[in-house]
Amino acid sequence: MNEFELIDRFFSRAPPEGGLVRRGVGDDCALLDCGERLLALTTDMLLEGRHFLPGADAETLGHKALAVNLSDLAAAGAAPRAFQLALALPRADQAWLTAFCRGLFALADAHGCALAGGDTTRVPLLEAARPPVDGPLTLCITALGDLPREAMRTRAGAAVDDDLWLSGTVGDARAGLALRRREIPSVDGHDEAFFFARMDRPQPRVELGVALRGIASAAIDVSDGLLGDLGHILERSGVGATVEWPRVPLSSALRALSPPLQQHYALAGGDDYELLFTAAAARRGEVEAAARSVGVVVTRIGRIEAGRALRVRDATGHDLPVAWPGFDHFA
Amino acid sequence: MNEFELIDRFFSRAPPEGGLVRRGVGDDCALLDCGERLLALTTDMLLEGRHFLPGADAETLGHKALAVNLSDLAAAGAAPRAFQLALALPRADQAWLTAFCRGLFALADAHGCALAGGDTTRVPLLEAARPPVDGPLTLCITALGDLPREAMRTRAGAAVDDDLWLSGTVGDARAGLALRRREIPSVDGHDEAFFFARMDRPQPRVELGVALRGIASAAIDVSDGLLGDLGHILERSGVGATVEWPRVPLSSALRALSPPLQQHYALAGGDDYELLFTAAAARRGEVEAAARSVGVVVTRIGRIEAGRALRVRDATGHDLPVAWPGFDHFA
Repeated sequence: MNEFELIDRFFSRAPPEGGLVRRGVGDDCALLDCGERLLALTTDMLLEGRHFLPGADAETLGHKALAVNLSDLAAAGAAPRAFQLALALPRADQAWLTAFCRGLFALADAHGCALAGGDTTRVPLLEAARPPVDGPLTLCITALGDLPREAMRTRAGAAVDDDLWLSGTVGDARAGLALRRREIPSVDGHDEAFFFARMDRPQPRVELGVALRGIASAAIDVSDGLLGDLGHILERSGVGATVEWPRVPLSSALRALSPPLQQHYALAGGDDYELLFTAAAARRGEVEAAARSVGVVVTRIGRIEAGRALRVRDATGHDLPVAWPGFDHFA
Repeated sequence: MNEFELIDRFFSRAPPEGGLVRRGVGDDCALLDCGERLLALTTDMLLEGRHFLPGADAETLGHKALAVNLSDLAAAGAAPRAFQLALALPRADQAWLTAFCRGLFALADAHGCALAGGDTTRVPLLEAARPPVDGPLTLCITALGDLPREAMRTRAGAAVDDDLWLSGTVGDARAGLALRRREIPSVDGHDEAFFFARMDRPQPRVELGVALRGIASAAIDVSDGLLGDLGHILERSGVGATVEWPRVPLSSALRALSPPLQQHYALAGGDDYELLFTAAAARRGEVEAAARSVGVVVTRIGRIEAGRALRVRDATGHDLPVAWPGFDHFA
């Protein structure tokens, strides 16, 4: 049973008719009825040793913990409004907290997202270990945003013949992780700094998400990997897609790695927090104008098709042998 | 630096004027503007080894994790609507998940509170331990409720000469914990089952919280201990109080323990999830009618006074030497 099967089996229940919940489990955000607007709600839990390395820089962590939630709001086209923070710490370390808050609130303030409340506690001492060790530093953020009711956007709206679009570049965060884990030899210092920045300081595409209201038919943020996240759109929308590999936007730093690594990191690497979205072909001009208005580069990388297949085509028109699932925490 | 100082120092920022957040850090719930209604938002994180014992019963945990959040909504007078669940598990254990969901959804359905979304992940393996051990099972729930704008109620509304009220009885959950930890000798089997039920299956006072809309001037749920939580009301409201110890409602099971234990558990024990609230003396009849309408016993245990002192008076009119702070996770 993988993570997605687990969620389907135990936690996917249709929200009650007429209740507050318009859209529940299985999307980037839940959508709640709030008068003339919809409230978008998203939760991400980050654990030391799973989502970030032990000893990770506190300011970076403060930024990233909120960024991954704002990225979910961006997918839904919601403007960030407020967040709740639950934090389990090994100790009340003032220097750590000062740096953490600096990263957290700099990003929150940049997006007008107010801390509304939360919970602070201490990690348990794990008595089963010899000697006992502190449990992992744990963060859980729930972010809220809002959007006009008519701009509701989910993973389920992709239609046959829609264009498939991607913001920014993909694969960079995965390259940063590979470098930090020493999976690959060191690279040019400038490229290394770029990869680390992409991994540690993802910039959620909030403005783009809002600018695409009423234009994009479906959207998701790339957290599990390009193909894995595209798979979520296809599954929810009941469609297939072809991705043109030569069109997938890669940074010059990534293009300095070997072709197999480029492909693996770009198609299966996670944590880029770019927006992957679909829009009718007739709206190409509007997509480009929306992206230009917020200063973000977007690239048309493929097309939505009938059927349920996900194909990736190389420069010669042949299918790549892709079998990269999204990241599964229980794999 | 204790937990409350930590929150004050690092996380208490006034929400921006004109934003979504009407009431932020420092109350049971954050209150958000949502058209004609207020949305109440609360987050609690529960960690194995700190908030519950390793190997705790899964169904009990499912109940309790949501109950503590619904109890915060009750304090604010909000009707539960939806919740987000973040869950970090050591493995995808289907029997455990089935039992957990049974406890969770039974309580959710009883209160019309829909699961809106969340996050599922695996706990990290802690490599620092020899041999490596799994991190603690961790849950974080964010619950949402709503209430009419004019019914807004916080910890800050207590006024001099208000009555001080308490629902149900206090000290029982702490007695259950003492028994489970073998801090005290075993008791009558019926009493033991009662204490364990009070500790494991707290019943959030949701209906009472709603019935007291417009009647109670301030409220909090008793999670840290009666005096500790009363202290939060006094601090936020800028008032003092006298509690009449002989009036504090105790279960017959608790009254079977020694008088010092009764007093310690009732005044300083946490986890009862009763409502502690204030109301003008002129509204005694309305308080009693509201409580009767939802079948909950409420008891007048003292009075709000000018000044900042919190006194507890015994049957002879003398002050008890109380110095029990609320539970502090970083103490």
